[in-house]
Amino acid sequence: MTKPLVLQTDFGLCDGAVAAMNGVAVSVDPALRIFNLTHEIPPYHIWEASYRLYQTISYWPADTVFVSVVDPGVGSDRRSIAAKTANGQYIITPDNGTLTHIKDTIVAAREIDETTNRLPHSEESYTFHGRDVYAYTGAKLAAGVIRFEEIGPEIPADSIIELPRKAPELQDGVITGTIDTLDVRFGNLWTNIDSSLFRQLDVNYGDSFEVTIFNESRQHYKNIMTFGHSFADSHIGEPLLYINSLYKLGIAINQGSFAKAYHIDTGIKWNITIRKAPKIVYQK
Amino acid sequence: MTKPLVLQTDFGLCDGAVAAMNGVAVSVDPALRIFNLTHEIPPYHIWEASYRLYQTISYWPADTVFVSVVDPGVGSDRRSIAAKTANGQYIITPDNGTLTHIKDTIVAAREIDETTNRLPHSEESYTFHGRDVYAYTGAKLAAGVIRFEEIGPEIPADSIIELPRKAPELQDGVITGTIDTLDVRFGNLWTNIDSSLFRQLDVNYGDSFEVTIFNESRQHYKNIMTFGHSFADSHIGEPLLYINSLYKLGIAINQGSFAKAYHIDTGIKWNITIRKAPKIVYQK
Amino acid sequence: MTKPLVLQTDFGLCDGAVAAMNGVAVSVDPALRIFNLTHEIPPYHIWEASYRLYQTISYWPADTVFVSVVDPGVGSDRRSIAAKTANGQYIITPDNGTLTHIKDTIVAAREIDETTNRLPHSEESYTFHGRDVYAYTGAKLAAGVIRFEEIGPEIPADSIIELPRKAPELQDGVITGTIDTLDVRFGNLWTNIDSSLFRQLDVNYGDSFEVTIFNESRQHYKNIMTFGHSFADSHIGEPLLYINSLYKLGIAINQGSFAKAYHIDTGIKWNITIRKAPKIVYQK
Repeated sequence: MTKPLVLQTDFGLCDGAVAAMNGVAVSVDPALRIFNLTHEIPPYHIWEASYRLYQTISYWPADTVFVSVVDPGVGSDRRSIAAKTANGQYIITPDNGTLTHIKDTIVAAREIDETTNRLPHSEESYTFHGRDVYAYTGAKLAAGVIRFEEIGPEIPADSIIELPRKAPELQDGVITGTIDTLDVRFGNLWTNIDSSLFRQLDVNYGDSFEVTIFNESRQHYKNIMTFGHSFADSHIGEPLLYINSLYKLGIAINQGSFAKAYHIDTGIKWNITIRKAPKIVYQK
Repeated sequence: MTKPLVLQTDFGLCDGAVAAMNGVAVSVDPALRIFNLTHEIPPYHIWEASYRLYQTISYWPADTVFVSVVDPGVGSDRRSIAAKTANGQYIITPDNGTLTHIKDTIVAAREIDETTNRLPHSEESYTFHGRDVYAYTGAKLAAGVIRFEEIGPEIPADSIIELPRKAPELQDGVITGTIDTLDVRFGNLWTNIDSSLFRQLDVNYGDSFEVTIFNESRQHYKNIMTFGHSFADSHIGEPLLYINSLYKLGIAINQGSFAKAYHIDTGIKWNITIRKAPKIVYQK
Repeated sequence: MTKPLVLQTDFGLCDGAVAAMNGVAVSVDPALRIFNLTHEIPPYHIWEASYRLYQTISYWPADTVFVSVVDPGVGSDRRSIAAKTANGQYIITPDNGTLTHIKDTIVAAREIDETTNRLPHSEESYTFHGRDVYAYTGAKLAAGVIRFEEIGPEIPADSIIELPRKAPELQDGVITGTIDTLDVRFGNLWTNIDSSLFRQLDVNYGDSFEVTIFNESRQHYKNIMTFGHSFADSHIGEPLLYINSLYKLGIAINQGSFAKAYHIDTGIKWNITIRKAPKIVYQK
């Protein structure tokens, strides 16, 4: 049986680009099973492509071949690479930071040799490597037409380009992190703060926390909110802290969009601090 | 051969949520054939999820397994259930009203036993039952790894939660109904009035009808329009009555959006009355 | 093995229409492999449906069955047809111009006989031939249940309806063409000017060209821009000429949307002229 082939791009589904990639893959092997990660990565948003890989890859079987094409440098001399994870999964992508969030799982990497791994008769096409190189190479790998080692020359895994990140930290009872991405449809914030780090604050469900959000160093939002199992633990419209489906700390408004309500975006410029809420004692 | 697995959610396709569900299913059985009903249900809109199941289920083969996840109560104590229809199809869903429009076809139901039917190592995740419980259980059922009876304890079919509906009626030559949903892309209104009820008005193509639309009891729109086979029977921009693809009465503007033109929404608050148009006789 | 079945519509993915088409196809043969071209054709935009077929069809294997449903005339007496290309691919569609851009590749055509090729019990449905006729007939053809010759009576290929087009031309060093479509997501303009015609201007990468865009005969945009391999050859925000992935001349702003920046649309009313930029000599 062929390996699953999973496609991700910033091409959207409005025109024929993704369908052309599917056609190339089906032409390599009609039995290929092709899936979509998402094609709605905001144009050129390499960081988000990297996060979506991280969000999903562990739920797919070993052997799965991912093709991720967010490629503002198409036609330049950026490398085209194939990476292999410790779990035996593969990612075919331009080497532009798309592997940032899963780089620590990469155990081997190859630079794609475009003389052998390029759709025949596409040599004059300089703007659609997603179709001509990545889908074609990914399909050949998923179909077993080529082995990983035949993709091209080996490159050091640590030479793969990485976008800047900040590690979360806990100091003097205050956790500092960044807003890594959004649960887009619902507007929840997903931080880079692991559940295990958060629990070092000696946390119980129902406890209150002071949450402050900064855009660079400027304070953007500050409030007290409680920590719940899930949205249903708070009233509709109320903010809450919760552990999300990747075991990171999330911030939500129950049945509302936190991101829209407070105009919050993602990336390492969006910082967050969390600490146990001070007890308020009214004077008698 | 495995059974078709059909997914519906309000998650959208912008991030990795639906892809994670696909990955879980493929991990259960790489041979599964996975389809989408829609992932663009408006967030938390259980009524619409119910209608989309009704709109499509009869066009799928017996054995098809539907997984429908519009789940504002995720993490609360709402039940997770599996239902079986008279045609031998299955639906895996939170028990929150998602089965309203097909409830009369349900012949058996089970509550999902999450101790056996939950993605291993997902116990700490409280906010993504779509991935951890529903996709996982649906995939096991579609793959034949478990039988319907192994999903969990039987529950009475009539204990399944139902949203309030109104039945259409004909009295003194006036049909009263509600606007159940929209043909979203084209803005046509789809009422709950069956073709057979409408035809009791002694109807011929080309006849004129008086159509009144109410928001609660307030009159919102009133006009005379003709009954046609299809949009092409009227001029571009003209309103018309027609029998839609589910054999219900629909209201459209040929190549325009009726819903947008008159700001009309759906649900049992949106009522409609229809009667034969009075003959206008000019005095001589 | 069944043939790939590729669906295109203007139905969007928000409701159950495309899922019903999938269900009909799977009911014909559960082993069918179903793909999407796009379902985001703007409503009633036959020209764009035609272009998307042209953009993708050559990347799919011989035997592939395309079903394209942009059908403002549903329920009228427009013909329903099946066409076969020189490469052995099939397209099932209303005969309304959808085959314009690939008409020169059609070698045989049949009118669909709806007495035999219509979903059983759908006779009263006049508004959803996409489900009742096109998906059903396409699925039967892809599954090998019927042969092309069994679809219905033969019709002359040149009787297929075609939308008006203009051929690009080169005269006195000036190329005249039209803007055929957009690379929607990125806002690039795709002209109907072939790379081979453009190269008759004696072109080198880095050369400058004067590009003028007209809406009907009114001048809408005029500027000098350079010809590059790809977007990465120019600075971010800079306009450029390039050869697109279909070997036609394209116009882009590197990491910007040319179409949005200058409010440019597509079709034969949007004309473009291109010539080598005059050399500017400063007086001494």
